[in-house]
Amino acid sequence: MAEQIEFDQAHQTLHEITQALENGRFVHVRRQLQDMEPEDIAILLEASPRKAREVLWQLTDPEDYGEILDELSEDIKDALVSKMAPEKLAEATEGMDTDDVAYVLRSLPNTLSKEVLAQMDAPDRLRVETALSYPEDSAGGLMNTDVTTIRSDVIIDVVLRYLRMKGDLPDVTDSLYVIDEHSKLIGHLPLTVLLTSQPDVLVSDVMDDADDAISVDTTDSDVASLFERRNWVSAPVVDHSYTLVGRITIDDVVDVIREDAEHSMMSMAGMDDDEDTFAPVIKSARKRSVWLGANVLAALAAASVSNMFEDTLQAMASIAVLMTIVPSMGGVAGNQTVALVIRGLALGHIGESNKKELLYKEAAIGLLNGILWAVLIGVIVMIWKDNLTLGAILSAAMLTNLFVAGIAGVLIPVLMKKINIDPALAGGMALTTVTDVVGLFAFLGLATFFIA
Amino acid sequence: MAEQIEFDQAHQTLHEITQALENGRFVHVRRQLQDMEPEDIAILLEASPRKAREVLWQLTDPEDYGEILDELSEDIKDALVSKMAPEKLAEATEGMDTDDVAYVLRSLPNTLSKEVLAQMDAPDRLRVETALSYPEDSAGGLMNTDVTTIRSDVIIDVVLRYLRMKGDLPDVTDSLYVIDEHSKLIGHLPLTVLLTSQPDVLVSDVMDDADDAISVDTTDSDVASLFERRNWVSAPVVDHSYTLVGRITIDDVVDVIREDAEHSMMSMAGMDDDEDTFAPVIKSARKRSVWLGANVLAALAAASVSNMFEDTLQAMASIAVLMTIVPSMGGVAGNQTVALVIRGLALGHIGESNKKELLYKEAAIGLLNGILWAVLIGVIVMIWKDNLTLGAILSAAMLTNLFVAGIAGVLIPVLMKKINIDPALAGGMALTTVTDVVGLFAFLGLATFFIA
Repeated sequence: MAEQIEFDQAHQTLHEITQALENGRFVHVRRQLQDMEPEDIAILLEASPRKAREVLWQLTDPEDYGEILDELSEDIKDALVSKMAPEKLAEATEGMDTDDVAYVLRSLPNTLSKEVLAQMDAPDRLRVETALSYPEDSAGGLMNTDVTTIRSDVIIDVVLRYLRMKGDLPDVTDSLYVIDEHSKLIGHLPLTVLLTSQPDVLVSDVMDDADDAISVDTTDSDVASLFERRNWVSAPVVDHSYTLVGRITIDDVVDVIREDAEHSMMSMAGMDDDEDTFAPVIKSARKRSVWLGANVLAALAAASVSNMFEDTLQAMASIAVLMTIVPSMGGVAGNQTVALVIRGLALGHIGESNKKELLYKEAAIGLLNGILWAVLIGVIVMIWKDNLTLGAILSAAMLTNLFVAGIAGVLIPVLMKKINIDPALAGGMALTTVTDVVGLFAFLGLATFFIA
Repeated sequence: MAEQIEFDQAHQTLHEITQALENGRFVHVRRQLQDMEPEDIAILLEASPRKAREVLWQLTDPEDYGEILDELSEDIKDALVSKMAPEKLAEATEGMDTDDVAYVLRSLPNTLSKEVLAQMDAPDRLRVETALSYPEDSAGGLMNTDVTTIRSDVIIDVVLRYLRMKGDLPDVTDSLYVIDEHSKLIGHLPLTVLLTSQPDVLVSDVMDDADDAISVDTTDSDVASLFERRNWVSAPVVDHSYTLVGRITIDDVVDVIREDAEHSMMSMAGMDDDEDTFAPVIKSARKRSVWLGANVLAALAAASVSNMFEDTLQAMASIAVLMTIVPSMGGVAGNQTVALVIRGLALGHIGESNKKELLYKEAAIGLLNGILWAVLIGVIVMIWKDNLTLGAILSAAMLTNLFVAGIAGVLIPVLMKKINIDPALAGGMALTTVTDVVGLFAFLGLATFFIA
């Protein structure tokens, strides 16, 4: 079973090729690359250290360049493309879908992308320029122009003969689009319907209507959500006058879904989702230090709170020992809520009508878990430090902080979304700052009042 | 443009329906639900507070139950299904795909699922029982049995006439499967090829070979990865003797991709990815407290490190004020690395052959950012606390901790993966424990040596 063993083999192949490269057996590697699918070469490149990557790229058949570039993540693609001559690049784009060519060109410096366009033949250039005229993250930027259209007043047999004459249909074609004399979309004919209808029936009698066309300026995330809910394989794209301008296919939508999901996961840790696993050290360090810089401010904010209570800390060192527990628990509890809310916002489950309900629910969970851990940790500390007051103070601060964490965990991402800040990116750090400050204030404040 | 305004309307609809429910206008709501697509009703249910959900479910046309259940997340589905009679459930399964029925039945108590099976007619029951015999997260659990098969020794025209006689093809059919007399898969005929071939050509002359069949015990994540890389719309599933047993379609694969991605994001925050946004408070609180309990241990570990240096803290309160900065920065930097490694492991970019390279790279980034922030924060603290030694100590501890964070950020998820612990779930907390302990040790240890 070819596919079954493939996964165990992938890293075996990588290992072999890496060794062959180290031993300078370039002819061997070139032959191995020729036997591989472009998508697998893409994975090999992603998994290779940078130096090996460049050698592998040189050894790859330029005919595969287009399809491979398509599959690579942005940073790696940029690095490889930046070293190619415009003619080579133009050549590589020949086997690619329009939207994918546009995607590659967008990442090039302006002068280089113009040169590449100049090297392409006229119809291809026009198609790519059209795609480039739409925002990258819109239906227009995602669509292909390779639509197959038919008229509604012909019979099925005519359509069948037309397709046979055409001799070839674009990949992932599951429907033919039905347009009127002004190129306006009036319906679509699924291939399954075409194949199961009688030859003498009119297209207009069996076609589906054009209700579910996507507008050219729908955002790519909304397009993805539509495909997911409707189980579409492809969908027509229309402009504001309902003229058919292209179609979007599920393979490009899957990339959007994957990227959106990766974006949430990576940004919550303060990472760029384009980051190459084997990026140059200096580049990565610079990118990541922005986020560390934000955290320095958060950490200094927490330190200035403790600083206000320096006398209390001086009076009793046990307070210093215990003061990290409450902020830590608040941060973890609050980030649970933040993750839930970020997912809910992304899936469209949270909006004006239900956010109050959510706030009450998370506050109640905060209170409940607050009581549980306040009691448990309070007792542990009372025994450990043999100090009833200290345990009680820690309990009270814990309860307060987990309650605040639940509320802040809902409010912070919802408010950020409202003022167009990405909650996946900034939500976690803002939350942690709040729970650090509140946790320290509560614990050290109470300690100052009752102990110091 | 129907789809364009749909997103703005979704919450408008939710708001209206919630109000209509509150006013007891049930007939109105029932009528509105009848006009909605099952997938949109599913989103409405997900976004509704629990009480409203049950009323909405009662008002929904039972004919839509199957398709709606299909789209709901596990916890919500379980809650709704647990209140339905077996006959009703059996009825609801009639409109569903085999794999989806199996998916619903799996989540039911054993006795209930047997009752539902008993209510189904024989061929359906057999299909579902077959699906249930495969693990849920395997190709067998993901596949449908609605394959359309043809023989290789007939001409295209015969196939076309056969399909017209059949009158109907399953959703998301993009290929017919070609089998021999023993039901073994020997190839597949894409509909696009069928439509563009001459009527008198033999199937065997135009079909694609059967190389890319999926084995029935491939894991669902591997299936998803194959679909993504090969841009498939559907793929045949075969058993160990290459007998065709079903097919997997992209719509089910998209669900796997979404779930895998959500799993990483939610587990990194210590959340169950099945968690309903409006789950009952007690249930949520209990689920989340497990994670908080793990964090208590981590926080107490950090506190016991500080406890060892109680004398130092007693000697100088400024040390207590500053001691949270180094662990905080280490945690953030280390979690950046952990996120990168978790993604790399999930995408198959990291393995035996390149993990050393990755370790060196992340250690180098840790060192570089360690130097940057050591110098900056060292200077800030020197000025703030007017204490050269304290600043120098903080710098040294910061450098150590960020370097350790880079190394631990690679080692922890890679080792967890090796011993089959989910790194997305446990990686972040393990990392934070390491950076807390190392950060506190480094800072308080140096302070004890040089100051106290």
